[in-house]
Amino acid sequence: MVNEQGGVSRTLYDLKTLDGRRLSPFGQRVRLALAHKDIAIDSEVAVRFVDKQAIAFAGSQTVPILVDGATVIADSWRIAGHLEDEYPDRPSLFGGEAGRALSRYFNNWCGLWLTPEIASFILFDMLEHLDDEDRAYIRRTREPRFGPLESLNVNRAARLPAFRKALDPVRITVKQNGNLSGATPGLADFMVAASFHWAEQASEFALLDLDDPLYAWSRRINGQAK
Amino acid sequence: MVNEQGGVSRTLYDLKTLDGRRLSPFGQRVRLALAHKDIAIDSEVAVRFVDKQAIAFAGSQTVPILVDGATVIADSWRIAGHLEDEYPDRPSLFGGEAGRALSRYFNNWCGLWLTPEIASFILFDMLEHLDDEDRAYIRRTREPRFGPLESLNVNRAARLPAFRKALDPVRITVKQNGNLSGATPGLADFMVAASFHWAEQASEFALLDLDDPLYAWSRRINGQAK
Repeated sequence: MVNEQGGVSRTLYDLKTLDGRRLSPFGQRVRLALAHKDIAIDSEVAVRFVDKQAIAFAGSQTVPILVDGATVIADSWRIAGHLEDEYPDRPSLFGGEAGRALSRYFNNWCGLWLTPEIASFILFDMLEHLDDEDRAYIRRTREPRFGPLESLNVNRAARLPAFRKALDPVRITVKQNGNLSGATPGLADFMVAASFHWAEQASEFALLDLDDPLYAWSRRINGQAK
Repeated sequence: MVNEQGGVSRTLYDLKTLDGRRLSPFGQRVRLALAHKDIAIDSEVAVRFVDKQAIAFAGSQTVPILVDGATVIADSWRIAGHLEDEYPDRPSLFGGEAGRALSRYFNNWCGLWLTPEIASFILFDMLEHLDDEDRAYIRRTREPRFGPLESLNVNRAARLPAFRKALDPVRITVKQNGNLSGATPGLADFMVAASFHWAEQASEFALLDLDDPLYAWSRRINGQAK
């Protein structure tokens, strides 16, 4: 597809609620990666959690999905790889192959630990931003893992110190380097910071203390998204 | 200093017990880094935990210490940076500046989480490889944090599944990439694998299942050390 300026047309499919909240940490990663590379999106398609038909063309059950000209890519890690490979003259997301390999650890760490941990603090609050269908979907898909979502909020204040402490390796590295990836942020940074963006979109619960250097860092990184 | 071949003389100060065990994960990292870069050591000085006088010249309380010609460097992370900067024509430990920045996370993660976690499984067993002075030193310096070292072994089997599960982000990344740093291992790999080398030197307790891909990976990485 071609856009009005005669360039390649790009469309991003991402979660967006009726009240305008972006509730996918994975969509936010892609927005940060696009902004970093200064690659514009021509159109966006806002989908709900239940809108599986709207994204079936991509062979995926989940957003984000990027349609970049004739190429359809699902999964934020694969989208980032596509952007890095297809736009090598733009600022790098990885800083080379070793950086790409090491960034993959953060993709796994976010998927296996950070995202579910954050979910345990904010999933119940997130429900109030969803319509009935999405609310039922989240309960049906998340409660087998997390239990009744109401129960998550009962002890979350008590669980918070351990969560914050577990972030120490990230916190200290950011303090030493400026970002995980060094003086210039890269996809590792976008993946971690996007998780905190998601938390802020979904809940008013303060995951990070306002004095925490990770709080300022996360806000700074997410400010780069368009 | 100059060695017999007329090259720069290099000396490594590292922990070594009377029965020949190398009980520093940080010393092992440096050995792996030196082997990766094919940089030879002309002499080694084996120190015990209590031998602070022997390393006072380096302004450090701990090994490893590398004396590389006229340069004295303490701390394994700083030694690795020195090797990377001074021997840029040898195989890289980081694969570029982003790789160096991201590797620093693993230095922090090992220091804040992996090493103390492993210590909680093996410290009591390690005592049997130490002489009376080192044994008293380890008790005096570690028991304020870990409690009576005997108590660590009481529940370690019960703690093992959570420890192994917490390694999933490393395990899956190694499975995807070959190593954390990609097809070729780098310092991030050496830091993590060296921690398991330390555990094997100190204790017969099986931290990793023999079927765990991290077990084979760790053995392979440590096999590169001289």
